[in-house]
Amino acid sequence: MFTLFKVVGLVARVDEKEALKLAKKLMSHLEDKGLSVFLEPRLARHVKKATAALRLEEMKVDLIITIGGDGTILRTGLMMPKPEPPILAINMGVRGFLTEVTPAEALETVDRCLKGDFVLEQYTKLSSYMGEVRLPDALNEVFITSYVPAKLLHTRIWRDNVAVAECQSDGIVVASQVGSTGYSLSGGGPVLDPKIDAFVLTPICPLTTFHPIVFSAKSTVSIELLKPKKAVVVVDGHYQMQMGISEKRLMVRKSEYKASFVRFDGDFYRRLKGRLLFPRGERL
Amino acid sequence: MFTLFKVVGLVARVDEKEALKLAKKLMSHLEDKGLSVFLEPRLARHVKKATAALRLEEMKVDLIITIGGDGTILRTGLMMPKPEPPILAINMGVRGFLTEVTPAEALETVDRCLKGDFVLEQYTKLSSYMGEVRLPDALNEVFITSYVPAKLLHTRIWRDNVAVAECQSDGIVVASQVGSTGYSLSGGGPVLDPKIDAFVLTPICPLTTFHPIVFSAKSTVSIELLKPKKAVVVVDGHYQMQMGISEKRLMVRKSEYKASFVRFDGDFYRRLKGRLLFPRGERL
Amino acid sequence: MFTLFKVVGLVARVDEKEALKLAKKLMSHLEDKGLSVFLEPRLARHVKKATAALRLEEMKVDLIITIGGDGTILRTGLMMPKPEPPILAINMGVRGFLTEVTPAEALETVDRCLKGDFVLEQYTKLSSYMGEVRLPDALNEVFITSYVPAKLLHTRIWRDNVAVAECQSDGIVVASQVGSTGYSLSGGGPVLDPKIDAFVLTPICPLTTFHPIVFSAKSTVSIELLKPKKAVVVVDGHYQMQMGISEKRLMVRKSEYKASFVRFDGDFYRRLKGRLLFPRGERL
Amino acid sequence: MFTLFKVVGLVARVDEKEALKLAKKLMSHLEDKGLSVFLEPRLARHVKKATAALRLEEMKVDLIITIGGDGTILRTGLMMPKPEPPILAINMGVRGFLTEVTPAEALETVDRCLKGDFVLEQYTKLSSYMGEVRLPDALNEVFITSYVPAKLLHTRIWRDNVAVAECQSDGIVVASQVGSTGYSLSGGGPVLDPKIDAFVLTPICPLTTFHPIVFSAKSTVSIELLKPKKAVVVVDGHYQMQMGISEKRLMVRKSEYKASFVRFDGDFYRRLKGRLLFPRGERL
Repeated sequence: MFTLFKVVGLVARVDEKEALKLAKKLMSHLEDKGLSVFLEPRLARHVKKATAALRLEEMKVDLIITIGGDGTILRTGLMMPKPEPPILAINMGVRGFLTEVTPAEALETVDRCLKGDFVLEQYTKLSSYMGEVRLPDALNEVFITSYVPAKLLHTRIWRDNVAVAECQSDGIVVASQVGSTGYSLSGGGPVLDPKIDAFVLTPICPLTTFHPIVFSAKSTVSIELLKPKKAVVVVDGHYQMQMGISEKRLMVRKSEYKASFVRFDGDFYRRLKGRLLFPRGERL
Repeated sequence: MFTLFKVVGLVARVDEKEALKLAKKLMSHLEDKGLSVFLEPRLARHVKKATAALRLEEMKVDLIITIGGDGTILRTGLMMPKPEPPILAINMGVRGFLTEVTPAEALETVDRCLKGDFVLEQYTKLSSYMGEVRLPDALNEVFITSYVPAKLLHTRIWRDNVAVAECQSDGIVVASQVGSTGYSLSGGGPVLDPKIDAFVLTPICPLTTFHPIVFSAKSTVSIELLKPKKAVVVVDGHYQMQMGISEKRLMVRKSEYKASFVRFDGDFYRRLKGRLLFPRGERL
Repeated sequence: MFTLFKVVGLVARVDEKEALKLAKKLMSHLEDKGLSVFLEPRLARHVKKATAALRLEEMKVDLIITIGGDGTILRTGLMMPKPEPPILAINMGVRGFLTEVTPAEALETVDRCLKGDFVLEQYTKLSSYMGEVRLPDALNEVFITSYVPAKLLHTRIWRDNVAVAECQSDGIVVASQVGSTGYSLSGGGPVLDPKIDAFVLTPICPLTTFHPIVFSAKSTVSIELLKPKKAVVVVDGHYQMQMGISEKRLMVRKSEYKASFVRFDGDFYRRLKGRLLFPRGERL
Repeated sequence: MFTLFKVVGLVARVDEKEALKLAKKLMSHLEDKGLSVFLEPRLARHVKKATAALRLEEMKVDLIITIGGDGTILRTGLMMPKPEPPILAINMGVRGFLTEVTPAEALETVDRCLKGDFVLEQYTKLSSYMGEVRLPDALNEVFITSYVPAKLLHTRIWRDNVAVAECQSDGIVVASQVGSTGYSLSGGGPVLDPKIDAFVLTPICPLTTFHPIVFSAKSTVSIELLKPKKAVVVVDGHYQMQMGISEKRLMVRKSEYKASFVRFDGDFYRRLKGRLLFPRGERL
């Protein structure tokens, strides 16, 4: 049988029995169809398939299937080989924004996917640099904050080489288009329409009024740490790196890589619906 | 003497003696230098120069000088001939965001301008259509609201031909890049960086959470009036048109015309500074 | 049979057949039990019971039953005799925040109510004065705004005799405790816990940052109109009065009257639940 | 000479030469007038007056003078003996909200104060309990947050014994009246008027809409940690205590102690003015 994909990688959260069970089932299912399957090493250990283990960074496969919530996707995204294989995200737990199918639909969906009956939705990722060091690309956002809870961070914001503003806040988020519906939104940032090539800088708990700013994705945004001496950069909620020891400036711009997701109904607003945008009540 | 401009139009608020006085002074000054000067008809009446009167719509001049605040500029902008001549904005009253020079600097600045010592800053305008009828282009924003104070407006938002969301709110603002610092900001919208080609839709007092959405300037945004039967569209705070009698849908997109302003220091963020973005206090 | 109530008033929206039908059914039901029933005059006309008509202002009855949404309750509240009889609110249409029972439960609930099996929930109302003239008490809020859409209102806020702040905004809301979940909330105001004796002043679309202020219900708050010359005061979304002709100042304080509602589960937060406070999604 | 105060305590930031210099000058000045002066131990070391050292907790003096910013006051407040002596706050650095006088006015102000020419402004403090353990009273706020940056905290809010709401956010602030102008404000909380006996619960970056709630100061508010297992409680930005090991619930209520400040112009709104409430610009 002809299939579009020959080699598939599997990632699953390992703290949920159901996720492990589904991973095993999917592996058999795919192998029965003649595909090669690699497992992320921790998953391989948990389902006792050591020979199929392959580090994510090396998974130059045709498709990666994730079983878990948005957290699983974001963690996976931080370690993807470049260019990034498409992700088919099976939701296990609370329904996420990035995931596409329920566990019950998993096998059927995978078959549909193998037949090519899907669309690829591509998302711009953000690359960030601290001096010469490049951090993992962010699917959602790059966040700078103080190590100490509720400690003010004093920063200066640069667009290309123009000093745009200074900001005293708990932290600063730079979010991608798809990330605009995540942490940035909690901080008061706008939703970015999928057709716009932009990112948004959103202060978290600014001391004084500081409005989110939307930049063209052609711009480079830098955040210069003025005070205190150290801070921490968090990429997609999971990757952390200290800032301030030798380098006081974080540069964020559009990555040359994109994330791509297998979708069967490629509508950003349908996914937002019921969560963010549609009315749920009545003013008195 | 060589001058870049041959024909200049003058607009001034007529409720301020100082504005009228400055208008007369400028007129003499420009005529002394050999330029032709036209006056907006109401101004012409007030300074008793009926022969120089010319309707704004017909002022196909090389430069329009406005004496007043941002309101004067916005009102002028609604009636500009196409393509729009550049505006030199002299501030009379509270310092505005769009104005450039103080009355004291007026003559000197005009001379500098005549010598070509300036930059032209161009702003995207928004065109809006109710069925076949095109409203005046907006420099700042198009706003739909109910006639009755505090009455909920129920609308459906379309991007191109996709229904994006429904909204119950006091009104909906669609703001241009430069307009993002105006009414939209009061409604919780973000600042749009001058390098981005985008506009922002901001609900005013939404009944339930409804985040501002930033669209590419290549998109067309439509607002469909669901309830009540009638509403009013306000362009740049001054032009009003009723909605709902024969047409239930307002379409907004990037205009083919731009506004251009004479600037001597073309920095958007410098003008924002001290007003919106820079810290003014200290958290306890 | 002994019943707690002898005389009942009925109010219903007249634009919904179901509401009229239920009104007639309730009237028979109550009369069968030996109670006297009065109908609000417009309702009396619609159900052809002219002899039972009585103006709301004169309905010094033991209980008023409203059939409709929150709008019906608010309009009724504006014309209640003093002290105010308790209201039993039957919901007809979109479920409201103030209403208590569904049409299907109506008869059963009324019987339960007649037996005294309920709690009375009392809400503080706001009285407001323009000079010597007292406006109808507000259950939810008093709102000052400009007549012209999107026109800035410049006001000075007084607490007792202290000038608290000046505000440039589309309008100013002063909301009661129960009204804190209404229009004020849309403007960014906080929720006031039912145990607090307070009200909240919330600016609508302030030009520059202006935070809502919570005042003790022992204080008097005045709003002085600085600019433009005229404005409109809206009480509970339905009553309007012009401001500025002879009187430039609106004084708001706790009314000596309270509204009371028949409740079978007197929990403010249960009603808020699912609407405002409980999480409905997952951050990415 | 008669003076109202006999024994004065001195606290100063020790990282600013000017603060130390002023502390020494004040000490001499006060001793010349016959008063006894104690120094906070770290200050005593820095100005080499070991014999005058006395721990803040033991400073049962008539007046405490602080030299520094709001941070100095908040740190001092955490260690005050009970009942708390009044504080005269001299500002050294950026002008704070709680401080009263400039260094240049210091001597003159102290003399004015010794003569009794002042008003005492009293602020309600918040006491908080983790099980049996009482944390230091907060002048501004109690804050619960995750140890890990940008990690969601899932909590349940209780008022007295009613579960009010669940909240997923970066953290939860409970602020006093005076603290309502501090961190809570950055999180979108309202200003509480000085005449109101209340506190406000403000979520920091809630995942989904969660409005600040204002409670009567007669209520007890508890925050129950649902997820993750551990969190940190921060009192007034400086005192930290871990939460979740043996105790999952933090109880906050009005303290029996108040903070009192020497003021020469007891106006809350005057201090807010120019910082928070008064307009600083013009809408376009």
